[in-house]
Order: sequence, then structure tokens, then C-alpha cells
Amino acid sequence: MTKTHQITIHDSTLRDGQHAVHHQLTLEQMRLYAEAANAAGVPVIEVGHGNGLGASSLQVGLAVSSDLDMMKTVRQALNQSRMAVFMLPGWGTTRDLDQAIAEGADVIRIGAHCTEYSVTERYLEHARKAGVEAQGILLMSHMASPKQLADACVNMQNYGAQAVGIFDSSGHYLPDDVTKRIAAIREAVDVSIIYHSHNNLCMAVANSIAASKAGANILDACARGFGAGAGNTQIEVLVPVLHRLGFETGIELYGLLDAADIAECELMPTPSTVTSTSIVSGLAGVFSGFKSKVTAVATEMGIDPRDIFFELGRLQVIAGQEDLIIDVALALSKRQKNADEQTCQN
Amino acid sequence: MTKTHQITIHDSTLRDGQHAVHHQLTLEQMRLYAEAANAAGVPVIEVGHGNGLGASSLQVGLAVSSDLDMMKTVRQALNQSRMAVFMLPGWGTTRDLDQAIAEGADVIRIGAHCTEYSVTERYLEHARKAGVEAQGILLMSHMASPKQLADACVNMQNYGAQAVGIFDSSGHYLPDDVTKRIAAIREAVDVSIIYHSHNNLCMAVANSIAASKAGANILDACARGFGAGAGNTQIEVLVPVLHRLGFETGIELYGLLDAADIAECELMPTPSTVTSTSIVSGLAGVFSGFKSKVTAVATEMGIDPRDIFFELGRLQVIAGQEDLIIDVALALSKRQKNADEQTCQN
Repeated sequence: MTKTHQITIHDSTLRDGQHAVHHQLTLEQMRLYAEAANAAGVPVIEVGHGNGLGASSLQVGLAVSSDLDMMKTVRQALNQSRMAVFMLPGWGTTRDLDQAIAEGADVIRIGAHCTEYSVTERYLEHARKAGVEAQGILLMSHMASPKQLADACVNMQNYGAQAVGIFDSSGHYLPDDVTKRIAAIREAVDVSIIYHSHNNLCMAVANSIAASKAGANILDACARGFGAGAGNTQIEVLVPVLHRLGFETGIELYGLLDAADIAECELMPTPSTVTSTSIVSGLAGVFSGFKSKVTAVATEMGIDPRDIFFELGRLQVIAGQEDLIIDVALALSKRQKNADEQTCQN
Repeated sequence: MTKTHQITIHDSTLRDGQHAVHHQLTLEQMRLYAEAANAAGVPVIEVGHGNGLGASSLQVGLAVSSDLDMMKTVRQALNQSRMAVFMLPGWGTTRDLDQAIAEGADVIRIGAHCTEYSVTERYLEHARKAGVEAQGILLMSHMASPKQLADACVNMQNYGAQAVGIFDSSGHYLPDDVTKRIAAIREAVDVSIIYHSHNNLCMAVANSIAASKAGANILDACARGFGAGAGNTQIEVLVPVLHRLGFETGIELYGLLDAADIAECELMPTPSTVTSTSIVSGLAGVFSGFKSKVTAVATEMGIDPRDIFFELGRLQVIAGQEDLIIDVALALSKRQKNADEQTCQN
């Protein structure tokens, strides 16, 4: 177990940030940011398509560069930071893992929906055997209880994960929610614990601090919060706040601020902001990536997109179930029509 | 004393938001937003120049409209919300207060630097005698201890204030800092307690929640966080988060989200974001309004603006002492020059 006050910052700017630009970051943009983050002493830089290795596709978006080229570029830019990649089984395969390891990935993250963690087993074992750091991630973790998450993490630890943890994929948590879950996981496992926030309710930094106080020692963050939906935890805020609270990250502040300025000027067409849609998506506990489809369907059918989000949340819809957006919209439209007719008859 | 779980939301969009547009909100913009916030049931709408009554000037910026016209416009837009105005003694006088009361202001806020609260006495008394709600505010409150703030609040209560509280003018606080201060004030006074955040460290909503848990029952917030520097607490996030935690505000969510959308589209040329300068200003505990002058001086003299902010923080510089920015820059420049010469000689 690592020391309580040492936090490893895992920079997802070049992976989760891709969601904000439909996976169109160029190799030159990646190089610029990776060099700056490396110079600031950021310990881990993640790279790839927003949905991870092998995910570039018409379904979730074609990346402008191949996994191979992105990894080669970032690897070359780093002389002190470690390189990480992310993989969702189904999109990626062991072949993708082998390629990433050959290209110098030091950290391999395998993610799965929080209740479907058993799919991570063979990939965690594979990465572990290859001698890289294997990490197991539970997505949409607000849909499971602290005990369920702790049990899942124990299982991933048994599969060989050297770090396990949770993503707040829809930005639903408030700090006390995070404290309960991380404390339950801390109680159950011996390995490092990962926490990853989204900022839908303006809580990304506060939740990450709550996680670190409860025992998480790997925190994900992105420059200027660049990321899906309302964005992620803002790395250049998180780091000095951790320092102020007595945690150590080994990162140099001015260098990190410079890297964030580069991200703002060179990578981000618009800043990550908390819009009305982000807020409703966070309150409803719906995957942030649903935003564009919900908005399109709502406009086409003359329905309030907020009603769709709350209904999707009630139905506990998860990433991959995008088709349900239309079903929900149709049902809401029918209900609205019936209500209108009822009003006319009265 | 009000019920613990009832929070009065005080909407500063049309007053603190003015800082973000150099006090150039038009009467039509004010009418649009005030009508929407009123329709959503926001209980108090503040209006005026960013620095309050009587502050329109070359020194801090000329507002595009007069105090009188702004108050007339907003008053006419409200049929359920109360109207508030803000005044800093020195800028505003009892004549300004009388005009505001004649124009239908229901709430009069008198602000002062946290250690200079005695200047509020005659204005709080004046407002109280006129039969409006008198509120006393301590600015830059991180520069005083919890005990000093509590003592100041007791004094303002004795001057007649029916609500007293603190502004985190430089966005320096983390939640525990707020909890300690509000708890100390709660212990000392019987009247309502006000808390007002800035978002420099991404903590505006989290700090406001900490304040409400510690006993604050009037929380300031702005649509989309519109406000000085990194912006204020985002009202349309704060309200549903308070509801989720069991607090009541009487505000209707969809109406509030609509009002925030109007603010974003009609009032804000750019969104409030947390830039590197905002972060350094928050860490250093320097008034957010210093940003443009620090940046200009730094550029002219070839100095890192971050060094200026940290030095201003070390010197505990307060609003109104803008002239010190140049002194600090000159001293830093001299120090840098000496260091360079030293390097050349070696």
C-alpha cells in the first residue's frame, strides 16, 4: 500500500478530452500537451480514442489518428511521465493490449460497467503477466452500492489488478457519496484506489478531494477539465488544492499551469462548461455522452430534453443503450399527446 | 431565526455579473433575466453596478445605465421576487440608499472589508429605520479568523442588521474553511447568515453547501456563475443540489434552468471559466478584480503575473489598493534583474 499522503495524478486530457472534440485531436496537439505535462512532472499521461483502444468506429466516432500513431507520438514526448491506455473489452482485444505494451504503455486500464466487472478478468491477467501496471475500473459507479463496488474491486484485485477504482461517469455524486464508496473499497482491498470525476454538478474537484481523504491514491484529472459532457476534474486546480491540504503529487505548479494554458489555446475549441443539459444529466445519473443524441431527438419530436434525461435516469439506462433514447421520447410524446387531448375534452 | 432547512437564494446575476462585462448590462438584458428568475420563484434579485450603488465612475468603470434606471427596470419585472441592492460606504451614501428605497428595494446590503465593519453602522441603522431588510457583509473574509468574523457579525447585528455574513471575494476557501467560519458566526448571532462564494478553486458550489450545513441560510449565486474573475456559485446547480440534500428553496428547477439559458445566451459574451490567473489569484487570496491590471502590468514589464499575485497575497493587499500592483511589479523586476546580473558575473 502506498503512503496515505502521496497521490498519483493520472492525466486523462489526451483520452477523456477526446470526447469533447469527437476524437479529433491531432498528433501535433498530442505532442504539444504531452511534452508540457511531462515537463511539469505529471506522473501518468493517458492517450487514445475517448472510448479507448480499438474503439475508433462509425458507431462512437472515428478518431483522426490510429491508436498506434497516438501512442508512438506520446511515448516519444515523455522522458519522465509514464504512459497509460484505456480499454473497454468488446471494443479492444488482447491484440490491442499487446500492441500498446509493445509501444511502451506502462499502465493498462481495463474498464467495465460497474456490475459487469467479470469481463475485465482475462485482460487484467494478460496485462499483469506482461509486466505492466494493470488497473481495473468500474464505470457508472453511482448505479451500485458501496458494498457492491467494494466486492467488485476485491474481485478485480484477485484478477491481478494493482489498482482498482470507480468512475463517476455521469457526474452524479456529491462529496458524501464519494466518501462512502471509497471508504468501503479502502476497507476491502490492499491495492491502490482510483477515483475519476465528471463536473456536471460542479463537484469534480470537491469529490476528488473527498476521495483522497477517504483513501483514494490515484486521481484522474484533465487540463481545464477537458472531457466528456461538463468535463472532468480540472488538473491544475486539483493539484495545488491537494498540496494545500498536505498531500504530495510531485508536480510543479507553474509548469502545470503552462500545460493547461496550452490545452486551452491549442486543444480546446470551446471551454468545458456546466450547461443546463449537463446539470440535468448529472442529476438524473445518465451517461454524459448521451447529450447530443438526446438533444437531437428532443428537437425532432418537440419534447423537453430534460424530461428525456430524467426518464432515462429512472430507467437506469447505461452507455451502449442509446437506442432507448428514441423509445423514451416516443413514450413521452404519446403521454403528452394524451394529456393535451384530455385537456381539450374538458 | 429561520428554519434550518429553508435556504433563501439571493441572485446576484445582475450585480456581481456586471463585473464580467465591465458594468455594461443593458436595461433590456436586465429585464429579460429578471422576468425569468422571477417566474422561476427566485426569492431575491440583486441589481446594480458591480461595485454597488453610486460606484459608476472612471475609476472602477462607468455603468451603461444609471442606478435609477436599473432599479426601475428590475422592479417592474418582478411580481413575486424581492429586489436587493448592494452598497459600499464611500461609493454610496445615504442619498443613494433613500433613492433605492423609494424605487422599491426590499433588501439593502452594506458591505465593508472584513476588518472595517464599523463603517456599516450608520447605513445599517438607516436602512433598518426605513423598514427594509438590512444586511451586513464582510468582504475578503479569508483575511480574518473565525473569531474576528463572528465578532464583526455580532457588531453588525447590534447595528440593526437582520442578516450578516461573509464573502469569499478571492475564491480562496476550501469547504472546511467555510464550515469553521460559518459555525463560529452561527454560534455568535441570532439573525440570518449570508454566504457568497467565488469559483477560483472550483469550490463555489461545494463551499456553499458546506456553509448551508454549518448554518448559513442565505446563499448568493449567479446564473451560469456569471461574476467577477472565475465567477460565482452557479445558481442552477446550487438549487437542485440543495434540494437533493433536503434543503428547501421554493425555486422551480426547469424555470431556473430556463433563466440560466437566457443568461448564457443574452447576457454573457463568454462563459465564466477557471483560468490559470483565476487559480493563482484564489490560491494567493487576492481580490479577483485585480486580474486585468495585474496582467497588463506583467506584460508591460516582462514579469510573470503569477509572481505578482503571490506577492500581493503575501502583502495582504486588499481591494482599493490597486496602486500596489505597480510597486510589487517594480520590486520583482529589480529582484529579477539582480539575479540575472549575478548569473552573468558567475
